[in-house]
Amino acid sequence: MSDKIPVVENILSANDQLAEEVRRRLNQAGVLAVNFMASPGGGKTSVIVRTVRALMDEVRIGVMDGDIVDIDLRELAGMGIPVSLINTGGECHLDANMVFRALPSMNLDALDLLIIENVGNLICPAAFKLGVHLNVVIASVPEGADKPYKYPQMFRGADVLLLNKMDLQEYMGFDVAYFRRGVEVLNPGVAFFPISCRTGEGFDAWLDWLRARINRRGAVK
Amino acid sequence: MSDKIPVVENILSANDQLAEEVRRRLNQAGVLAVNFMASPGGGKTSVIVRTVRALMDEVRIGVMDGDIVDIDLRELAGMGIPVSLINTGGECHLDANMVFRALPSMNLDALDLLIIENVGNLICPAAFKLGVHLNVVIASVPEGADKPYKYPQMFRGADVLLLNKMDLQEYMGFDVAYFRRGVEVLNPGVAFFPISCRTGEGFDAWLDWLRARINRRGAVK
Repeated sequence: MSDKIPVVENILSANDQLAEEVRRRLNQAGVLAVNFMASPGGGKTSVIVRTVRALMDEVRIGVMDGDIVDIDLRELAGMGIPVSLINTGGECHLDANMVFRALPSMNLDALDLLIIENVGNLICPAAFKLGVHLNVVIASVPEGADKPYKYPQMFRGADVLLLNKMDLQEYMGFDVAYFRRGVEVLNPGVAFFPISCRTGEGFDAWLDWLRARINRRGAVK
Repeated sequence: MSDKIPVVENILSANDQLAEEVRRRLNQAGVLAVNFMASPGGGKTSVIVRTVRALMDEVRIGVMDGDIVDIDLRELAGMGIPVSLINTGGECHLDANMVFRALPSMNLDALDLLIIENVGNLICPAAFKLGVHLNVVIASVPEGADKPYKYPQMFRGADVLLLNKMDLQEYMGFDVAYFRRGVEVLNPGVAFFPISCRTGEGFDAWLDWLRARINRRGAVK
């Protein structure tokens, strides 16, 4: 497989160039873009739906959904915000080209916040820059506390880490301290919010964190 | 990305040839090989550990572990069966070449059953034949009942489907009928066992199914 490396490097370099172009267009329009990544079933859609509901009266939000099929899309579109499906062609991750091609489907000038739902995968999405301002990684209690140790690349790249399904923590015997130690080695000081989409636990703190970044988006540029 | 397709086709064709060679060696040694796939945290290691414990006095079992790091390996090696780590180089799936290169680490003539733990990923592993006889897909209740609809390729390729963490079914409001309808469209009549590694629910039926295939491994060839 030694002949594989240059091909991968070329793809990544082309991807990074497109990611820069995506970022340029977002900044021009004054939009903060946030990429949500998680395992399948980790709670990307639930977190996004609850986050949108909480913020949609304060900020203008659009959602681009790349999670393979359009089940998620219907729930989001039902909330009356602009939503578009990113055509991944069955790929295991989003790349900058997919986001770039999807940008014209959104009126960026009418948005403050663009939420991008990545494909459900803890590995591949970590390798592709999209041009967003913030990467949100969602882990969930039933997946087990060893995930940072097993999927380091994903946790290393997070700007904020949400630990979802905290309502199951006691039942599952999830060791939050062990989980956090794994994260801290990879990504010291990363913002961390234990949450539950079911009970609403932790959402106030996560929403305050996100609000502050939306309000500061001049600085983010 | 139109220039990408031929490269992918070449890789897959080379993979399939190696998968045939893996299969030939397994058959020569009279070993039944089983590939376990799931999301991160879906329960691959827990299912494997419980399955090995239940069968290790009846059949000679070896485990090859491709799930990125060696945390899982330590638990398995502690059971006193032959275990080896497949070097995935951080890849998001196993391929036939990785298995082929790992085969010499196992004394196949001393085994009846070879268990392979794939990388935690519901997408990429589905695209790469390994040369095994059976593909086990593990879904888990906290991931949600929509997974067959969102990751069809994985469910389409399963020889048996285990639905893990059934002890959480009532609490999570997991709709088993909806899940099964999604599976049946993709893979009609696939063997299906709801299980819980925590309570042991469903393991007798799953183990009987697997035992029958181990005993029939002449026929599998």
